[in-house]
Amino acid sequence: MSEPDPPQEATDQRLLRGARARAAISRHAVDVASLEGLTGLSIGRLAADLGLSKSGIATLFGSKENLQLAVAATAREVFLDAVVSPASNAPSGGARLRALTEYWLAYVRAPLFAGGCFWAAGLADFDSRPGPVRDELIRHRRHWLALLTGEFEQALAAGEAPDLDPELAAFQLDAVLVAANTALRLGDEDTPEKVRRVLDGLLTPRRQADER
Amino acid sequence: MSEPDPPQEATDQRLLRGARARAAISRHAVDVASLEGLTGLSIGRLAADLGLSKSGIATLFGSKENLQLAVAATAREVFLDAVVSPASNAPSGGARLRALTEYWLAYVRAPLFAGGCFWAAGLADFDSRPGPVRDELIRHRRHWLALLTGEFEQALAAGEAPDLDPELAAFQLDAVLVAANTALRLGDEDTPEKVRRVLDGLLTPRRQADER
Repeated sequence: MSEPDPPQEATDQRLLRGARARAAISRHAVDVASLEGLTGLSIGRLAADLGLSKSGIATLFGSKENLQLAVAATAREVFLDAVVSPASNAPSGGARLRALTEYWLAYVRAPLFAGGCFWAAGLADFDSRPGPVRDELIRHRRHWLALLTGEFEQALAAGEAPDLDPELAAFQLDAVLVAANTALRLGDEDTPEKVRRVLDGLLTPRRQADER
Repeated sequence: MSEPDPPQEATDQRLLRGARARAAISRHAVDVASLEGLTGLSIGRLAADLGLSKSGIATLFGSKENLQLAVAATAREVFLDAVVSPASNAPSGGARLRALTEYWLAYVRAPLFAGGCFWAAGLADFDSRPGPVRDELIRHRRHWLALLTGEFEQALAAGEAPDLDPELAAFQLDAVLVAANTALRLGDEDTPEKVRRVLDGLLTPRRQADER
């Protein structure tokens, strides 16, 4: 308290540098978490990787839990930018579901996260650990399932898939997308084709052709 | 080297005690791994949990990788005992697939492993880490998918599901079973019913009723 308050401009500069540093560290931390899991993420590891001091990173994030939450928020942004936003150019319903699926398949193949799907790795880590990080992962999963359900509802309303159960279809599509992440990381190269065939099956129920 | 060789009987006793100790430690380690992931498994943690010395556990297993492999083998036995063996009483084909599904759903709900499906947690951890542990997890997954594919082939041959693609159906069923493990751990209680409806859908293609 012996120093005078810094002028406002200097404070803003410092906050801005802090925000940029947090963003850069979070982005690298998502890669680490996609490989090692969120629980494998340590401030020491990040400091070593990035050539920063442990105390500097600890000051920026406050606690390991806050670091995990910042990482989850960054992973969410990357996911929205890579999958949800580009797919929103396709018409709602079946076309958008196909677009979401293609962007997802590209997303798990491209080196956006070093270890594949951050969310799949995060959920497996945290499904048994109550707390704010698990709550955040659950919230992300609910949003994603609600988005898929809404698109299947659109497909149903548009008559693209007349005897579909949107919620069940969303559960199935999410399940095969997550399975595709695992299968691709284990080298099953025919996985994208399987996922497309499952979505085709969901969108064109077999009774349709006979009833018309 | 100053002591004489122990008599054969004493050696056998010691090996037996070693084998029993390995089995007991592996069984506890599976629980830890189901919660923390295989990478979260440390000899120190096991020693603290079980009131044993770290050096004693290290001597029994040799290395962390050997411990992980022993844990994978134990988890495989538990899985076979809980899911595959009891389901083999059902007739091959659709009935066995339903039995496998029910035993799987019971298996992920019952506290067999403290943290839910060991394999789901293990694959998410190791899909990006080449080595013998990943190879073992891949082998387990291939066996499991081959088993499901074989039962769908039986269902197809028996005319239970005439226009089925067995390999694609196995991919889908495995995907929803893994998704059910996650969903149940996150509190989605309607998950078992969803899984049963997906399997019903796979086993009774909708065109069937119209073609007969």
